[in-house]
Amino acid sequence: MNGSPFAFSVLHVDAHSHARRSEFRTPHGTVPMPAFMPVGTCGAVKGITPDVLRATGATMVLANSYHLALRPGDDVVADLGGLHRFMGWEGPILTDSGGFQVFSLADAADVTDEGVTFRSHVDGSLLHLTPRRAVEIQENLGSDVAMVLDHVISLPAADTDVRDACERSIRWADECRRAARRPDQALFAIVQGGLDPELRRSCARRLVEMDFPGYAVGGLSVGESPDEMYQVLDATCPELPPDRPRYLMGVGRPQDLLQAVRRGIDLFDCVIPTRNGRNALAYTDSGTLRLRNAAHQRDPRPLDENCPCPACRHSRGYLRHLFMTGEMLGPMLLSAHNLTYYQRLMAEVREAIEADSFMELYDEKLSRMAGAET
Amino acid sequence: MNGSPFAFSVLHVDAHSHARRSEFRTPHGTVPMPAFMPVGTCGAVKGITPDVLRATGATMVLANSYHLALRPGDDVVADLGGLHRFMGWEGPILTDSGGFQVFSLADAADVTDEGVTFRSHVDGSLLHLTPRRAVEIQENLGSDVAMVLDHVISLPAADTDVRDACERSIRWADECRRAARRPDQALFAIVQGGLDPELRRSCARRLVEMDFPGYAVGGLSVGESPDEMYQVLDATCPELPPDRPRYLMGVGRPQDLLQAVRRGIDLFDCVIPTRNGRNALAYTDSGTLRLRNAAHQRDPRPLDENCPCPACRHSRGYLRHLFMTGEMLGPMLLSAHNLTYYQRLMAEVREAIEADSFMELYDEKLSRMAGAET
Repeated sequence: MNGSPFAFSVLHVDAHSHARRSEFRTPHGTVPMPAFMPVGTCGAVKGITPDVLRATGATMVLANSYHLALRPGDDVVADLGGLHRFMGWEGPILTDSGGFQVFSLADAADVTDEGVTFRSHVDGSLLHLTPRRAVEIQENLGSDVAMVLDHVISLPAADTDVRDACERSIRWADECRRAARRPDQALFAIVQGGLDPELRRSCARRLVEMDFPGYAVGGLSVGESPDEMYQVLDATCPELPPDRPRYLMGVGRPQDLLQAVRRGIDLFDCVIPTRNGRNALAYTDSGTLRLRNAAHQRDPRPLDENCPCPACRHSRGYLRHLFMTGEMLGPMLLSAHNLTYYQRLMAEVREAIEADSFMELYDEKLSRMAGAET
Repeated sequence: MNGSPFAFSVLHVDAHSHARRSEFRTPHGTVPMPAFMPVGTCGAVKGITPDVLRATGATMVLANSYHLALRPGDDVVADLGGLHRFMGWEGPILTDSGGFQVFSLADAADVTDEGVTFRSHVDGSLLHLTPRRAVEIQENLGSDVAMVLDHVISLPAADTDVRDACERSIRWADECRRAARRPDQALFAIVQGGLDPELRRSCARRLVEMDFPGYAVGGLSVGESPDEMYQVLDATCPELPPDRPRYLMGVGRPQDLLQAVRRGIDLFDCVIPTRNGRNALAYTDSGTLRLRNAAHQRDPRPLDENCPCPACRHSRGYLRHLFMTGEMLGPMLLSAHNLTYYQRLMAEVREAIEADSFMELYDEKLSRMAGAET
């Protein structure tokens, strides 16, 4: 990647696992990895201002091409100066290709080798997404990292369907690569192949031959068990080039992040911290708390005494009250807390890898997470 | 008020109007007046963290006893350290008595001279509010300023009903005064009397005889026209002692604030800036903007180039997008903007009074506010 605004360096590999401490340089800043990206679906992390987002420790965020192409339109975002200016986030941004959303949100998706035709979940209008159009949308948005268009199917699925979708994803990846024009945008490939380890391996090998600047593991978090997901990572990660970032899409729970880092994943995104925050579920090192429980009514303690987030300046009793009265401040504060929890976890992970103590952190965290819910 | 943690001083009276530049010292800080209090109904200003609230320039906030007594209960707030700690606001807080809410929100309010029996709007339970209980609730909450219990009726109303409610409010004010115990809480009286100037004057005189540390004009914003409200102020303000703060409850629009300051009012509260913010209506010096209008779709300008609020770091196009996609960030940012607009307006008002140029500001602002809506 000489002369490129992008550079990926592995600083250290953990002595007792495949966990990597790395850095990814982009036109909008450098991301210390392993890293977790909060999700700003429509160009906004739900309930979180850019100031609060920075304060959580986030360095890179994800936005959804599908949603932004529907509303306000990628041309509108381009007119307003591109996605960074639009959402007021000057750090690195990754956009997905819209593949996952088309298959999970849109009605009547009709797939051919050219692309997918679907109806907008917003107004029912008929739309067409091709590899070229997926690249065009992301170039209009101006994200630092764009993703290839892939064919995502829900699991379990018939072998022929999985194989068919995987083949199509590989062809589409190649088309996206040929269509991409912006030197300030890196295009990452997506490994598909369902739960079939051999298919995952061959998919990875064929994408690696095309020499992408980064690789994602896709098609997970679609109905499979955690163990099935970890097995897919066991099969896929060894096939990916060590000098390129590895991104596990749409995953996941804190324990999933630890499991994936152990297997060599560098980058994550997931709506869990914000979605659970809106639903009154808080992450702490002693397990999760359901804030609506009556047990918290008169509890003067913060969620976590060591957490610097704005929610932890209040009592659990106050946070519960906000949810019981339907105040939007409840979802706002708990989303900020959960995002801060995720970022603090990733910071601990990075430190532990540097100290070759990642597996100790992993054991400690996983045993605590198995603790009881309140 | 010697030896008291409270002190009110008029620093300057405008040369061309009754507008007063004053200061009100409370146990939680000094409030430069005229001042506008954002409303934190349930112990939270909707969509606004304490940090953002401070950044708007607010110095004092209002919370509703009625709502807090129902949920989480004033005893719970007391257990959690009182209202300041509960909501994370270390500045001055004023609580209302619950009178207005009982008559506007509760079902089947049944009024006797002892108090009012009503059903909770939350769970339908039967509750009883007396002058003593109104004081007890506010002493449990621990606000800096408490309000007497008053009997609020909607306007227009029959003369006998207005007179009856006014008499009852005066008796209740006296009962509250006798019940109040906390030296760190100032109890303000409320002038009632509907739209009858003579009744307003006599109510004010009788309350002034009881020597309260502050006086409110109540029973407005309940269906009367702006001009009727201004006439009530014309009748009432001259009866109030010049050395006590004057608070116009539940009012109002920016033009109402200017009209009332001109007549000698020092303190305001209103839900308008936050409620309108949640509904995509933005205040600017050139008039109001309806953010959902298609005209704003590709507009790269901020709402107001001189506004320091977090919304004004974004384009109008982005703010419109947030409302069109139902992102909670839209209500959050526009509430912060409108609160900042109100605080900046009050800061201009205070400066103009000091410079004896309040009426110039008044004329300029009122003519601009008459401008077209976009």
